[in-house]
Parts: sequence; C-alpha cells; structure tokens
Amino acid sequence: MNEVIQLLQSHRSIRKFTDDEIPQEALNELIKCGQSAATSSFIQACTVIQVEDKTKRDELVVLGGNQPYIASAARFLVFCADMNRHQLACNIHQAEMQSGFTEQFITATVDCALFAQNVITAAQSLGIQGVYIGGIRNQIQAVTDLLELPQLVYPVFGMCLGYPAQNPEVKPRLPLSVVLKKDSYYDESDPATIRDYDEQVREYYRTRTGGNKDTAWSEQISEMLVKEVRPHMLEYLKSQGYLLK
Amino acid sequence: MNEVIQLLQSHRSIRKFTDDEIPQEALNELIKCGQSAATSSFIQACTVIQVEDKTKRDELVVLGGNQPYIASAARFLVFCADMNRHQLACNIHQAEMQSGFTEQFITATVDCALFAQNVITAAQSLGIQGVYIGGIRNQIQAVTDLLELPQLVYPVFGMCLGYPAQNPEVKPRLPLSVVLKKDSYYDESDPATIRDYDEQVREYYRTRTGGNKDTAWSEQISEMLVKEVRPHMLEYLKSQGYLLK
Repeated sequence: MNEVIQLLQSHRSIRKFTDDEIPQEALNELIKCGQSAATSSFIQACTVIQVEDKTKRDELVVLGGNQPYIASAARFLVFCADMNRHQLACNIHQAEMQSGFTEQFITATVDCALFAQNVITAAQSLGIQGVYIGGIRNQIQAVTDLLELPQLVYPVFGMCLGYPAQNPEVKPRLPLSVVLKKDSYYDESDPATIRDYDEQVREYYRTRTGGNKDTAWSEQISEMLVKEVRPHMLEYLKSQGYLLK
Repeated sequence: MNEVIQLLQSHRSIRKFTDDEIPQEALNELIKCGQSAATSSFIQACTVIQVEDKTKRDELVVLGGNQPYIASAARFLVFCADMNRHQLACNIHQAEMQSGFTEQFITATVDCALFAQNVITAAQSLGIQGVYIGGIRNQIQAVTDLLELPQLVYPVFGMCLGYPAQNPEVKPRLPLSVVLKKDSYYDESDPATIRDYDEQVREYYRTRTGGNKDTAWSEQISEMLVKEVRPHMLEYLKSQGYLLK
C-alpha cells in the first residue's frame, strides 16, 4: 500500500479547524489539481466560488443549515456546475446552444465532483482537510442569489478547508462484496452482508460516543429516507435552465 | 509541489494499454480507495460492476459508441448510482422509502463521481491509467439490461484501466481566473480570457496532430452544443425511479 493509497483510505470529514491560514498560492495549486481531473468531452464545466467576504460566509452558515465551520474554516469554496460559459463559447461563434438536456446536467455535475475530489485529495497531501457541504442545497435559490450565479450555473456543494483541530476515526464502509460486483448487479447475499455491516456501524458509533449513539447503517438510512428531501430541487434546477428535457 | 499534486496535475486520459494485467487484489485496493471518498449523509450510493465476461465487454464496445479500449483495457468498470440498496435498508426496518427526488439523484451521482475519482487517482499511483467512458450512456437502457441493473440503479459512466501504451501530452485547461472566482460569479474579463485560451488550445492541437487539427476550445464546444445530446436520458432515468419529483 503506497502513500497515495494510504492517504485516500485515511480520509475523514473534518469540521474543526485551527486558525492557520491557507495561502492563496497553495489554494490555487489545489484548484489546478481540480482542473486536471477528467472532463466530459473537454467541457470543463466546474466553476469554484471562493467565499472570502465575512458577511457572505456568515450568511452561508445559516443557509447551509447552521454549520458554523462554514465560517471558521480557513477557506470555503462553492463548486458550481457551470454551462454558462458554454453559452459564451456559443456566442463567440454565433451558434445556437441547445441546453436543458438532462445529459448536460449529468456531465456538468460529474465534472464538478471529479474536480472537487482532486481538490480535497491534493489538500490532504498538504495536511489540509475538510468537509463537503451539501447543506448549501437547503436554500439553494438564496445561495444562487448571494453568489450572483447566472442561468446554467448551480451550486452543487460547498467545501470547508483548513488545518484539522480534531482527529476522528475513519468510518467503516460497506463490505467490498456489496459495492463491487462481477458482470451483473445481482447478488443474493447483499441483505445478509448489510446486516453484518450494520453491527460494525453500531460498534463504531458506540465506541465513538461512549455508548450514547447505537445506530445501524440500514436504520440510519431508513430513518432518513422516509422523509422528503429538498423537494424544491427540481423546480429550482429548471429555473436555472437544467433538466428541462 | 509534492508528489500527490504532481500526480494529479499530470493526468491524461489513456486509451491504449499494454497486455499487463491488474491483479484482483490491486483492483480491490483501488475500490476501497473509492469507498473512502466522502459520501453524502453516509449513503454510500456507488456500486461498481467489474465486467470480466468477454461477450459483455464486446457488447459494451458497441453500446459505448465503438470504443475498442473497453475490450482491450485490463479492467473495465461501470460505476452505478445505486439507491436500490437503500430500498433494502428500508425493507429491513419496514420503512416506506420516499424515492424519486431530484436531490437523491444528485447525491447518488455525486457519490459515484467522488468514488471513481479516488479509484483513478489510486490507480495512477500504481502506474495504472485509464479513461472515463461516458459513452455507456449512448444506449443506457441496453447497458442497464446487460448488467441486470434493477430499479434505482443507473450506470453513470464506465472506466477503462490498464498499464499505458501511449504517452499523450497534458491538455491545457482553462485559465485559473475563469474557473476560480471570489465571492461572486460575475467577472467581465471571462470572454477575453476564453479567447486567449482558445489560441492555446489551437496550438496544442496543431502540435499534437502535425497541423491536421486546429480547433479552438470555444469552437469545439459550440460545434458540440448546437446538437441535441442523449435526449433519451430523462425518460430513461424516470423509468429507473429517478428525477420523478
């Protein structure tokens, strides 16, 4: 197991940071790593908004569901799926852009995620850690307004980055046999394997909380999925020019 | 610039491979790196189908738009956004899963992309390289049938992995100022910066093709975007239980 593999397998989300700053030059290097990720048909559909303005950061804490580390992290980035600049490209050549296809939504969203994952891996190699913030989709229209995102741009997630001031354990993942299958999806042992895994997760929470939390994975998931989740997303995305057809 | 950053910034898509094999143990290690990526609310919504069956590989070459490296790569993986196993989790607890939300489509798709990017980074650290295959969405229903994917599972992209038998140059990315913005999206210098970048891309193609290709980035993008793109995706995804609300 080489160092890169060790680095990747030791990932934890970090929500408490020291006061140490991340120099702009280092951040730029991380962003270049993001840009180096694969991009579907060379579309390069990710734009990052680096939020420095204190008032905007504080606003984002609230909009993101009261997550104080959005303000306390050395850097806070918002990763946007961006096909607005493809509109610019089409304008340069007087071409009429066909937008709104679900396929474009997928490629732009995936582009962003590949980009962001390179950023966090590169960060980790410098001792910087962080956490993805899906919570910015709670009030996504307000975030869109705050960052002045035009049509065909939507904020996929945020990311806090800083030097860690906590050291949580690595959370156990699903057994390999559940997530890696050969030639076909079907594997009748999945329910039993998930039940075994449930016990591992219970044990992880028990140890980590001194017995206060004791939830199996499937339990946690089922409690979450009986509720509706960000039901505004489809309408919002249509209003930004995505998922129209 | 440390080794990890160098590794990430030197990424190129590789489509020609040697005959060297990737041992299953090494592949498992890569998948574990994928699993270690962040996952939205611990949903772990990525399932990988490792396609070994030769007939299925050959079929995927055709379904993927005649990309022969799908068959010639040492390994071919299909990354699926999977909320079928969350249905299993809900069944264990007699919970009625609320599915079909666009938000769930985003989290599952992003989970897959973060996972996959870790896989390719880990691969690269072992000298293995590859290419993402979005082409599996060309005939996505046929791919779904071939791999026996149930409801709430869809193949986001494929990935060829192997030892490289080509050494292409790194493709120049958009200037940093276009993809990284401070506090707000708006930057009036974007169109001019894109025009400068267009010349860089032209030069890259000229050098690489001995003058046979000479296309600016904005030109390439505009030619692509005047056409409709995989217009079947929305209907397909709805039939799999996604993007219903």
